[in-house]
Amino acid sequence: MTSAPRAPSDRKGLVQVFTGDGKGKTSAALGVILRALGHDFRVCIIHFMKGNFPYGEQKILTSLPNVTLAVFGRLSFVDPNNPAEEDKEEARKALGAGRKAVLSGEYDLVVLDEVNVASAWGLVGVDEVVKLIEDKPEHVEIILTGRYADKRLIELADLATEMTSIKHPFDKGIEARAGLDY
Amino acid sequence: MTSAPRAPSDRKGLVQVFTGDGKGKTSAALGVILRALGHDFRVCIIHFMKGNFPYGEQKILTSLPNVTLAVFGRLSFVDPNNPAEEDKEEARKALGAGRKAVLSGEYDLVVLDEVNVASAWGLVGVDEVVKLIEDKPEHVEIILTGRYADKRLIELADLATEMTSIKHPFDKGIEARAGLDY
Repeated sequence: MTSAPRAPSDRKGLVQVFTGDGKGKTSAALGVILRALGHDFRVCIIHFMKGNFPYGEQKILTSLPNVTLAVFGRLSFVDPNNPAEEDKEEARKALGAGRKAVLSGEYDLVVLDEVNVASAWGLVGVDEVVKLIEDKPEHVEIILTGRYADKRLIELADLATEMTSIKHPFDKGIEARAGLDY
Repeated sequence: MTSAPRAPSDRKGLVQVFTGDGKGKTSAALGVILRALGHDFRVCIIHFMKGNFPYGEQKILTSLPNVTLAVFGRLSFVDPNNPAEEDKEEARKALGAGRKAVLSGEYDLVVLDEVNVASAWGLVGVDEVVKLIEDKPEHVEIILTGRYADKRLIELADLATEMTSIKHPFDKGIEARAGLDY
């Protein structure tokens, strides 16, 4: 089994959006990361909301080469109607870290986990996310996850998938489970 | 960071379905696998269609402990309207391997990748997939991926997500890319 050449400079990175109310958005981003690592891509993941932080996979990801992980946000839930200044500050830091990673040239794939929610709730401006995408170096692939993706982000994306919940165990009162949901 | 206990016998395994025409079904299953491995789950992945075989992630997955990977199907595409006997034979073998894995007690999570398509195209009977789900030990989690999930499978599932393509780079003539699509 051979790998693709590492960070081929002539590769065109795309923009992928995983949105919708169904389970599988962050999971799909993680799956793409696994695939990318198998081809020796250098990957950076920025988690905008610690409350959604994928503890299970952190253990595996941090054991692998070529992965950088950065986590922002507070453990408490954000009030969408009245986000605290600290929540905005954390989201701004997350976007700054994402911008740095994208522009650094050190990564082939940058995942901005829950950035769609952060911008929908006004923690960061959609304009700034748009600008980050517009400024990205040609070879960098960006994945944006989270519900409520702004239509401007979907317009800019090359690929967008809406994950729609047909049924969810939470509907039956089953709580989030270690190893499967986090 | 602590892990959940390994294969707790009182854990109730659920059935998850990822279906729809959008990108992210197999990727989401891979993301759940990453999460599960982080909690020391034992994982088995059965790929029903080699044509869809995720070469990039195989390299990472086979480097990790607690993962078994089995690949079935022929490299050539299956004709949905007139599948070859060899395609049916491969799908039957895949389902047999999945059944063995589920009933063995050796795995906490079994992913049947593209089984939805295999049953929709008549390579295996939906009845047999239903029976496998009905016969599963309590603690085993099963994930079924692929387009065209039969409504009986969705009825049996605890969680089902429809991945709908909003836009896809293939629409623009961009071909599948190493590290991102395989």
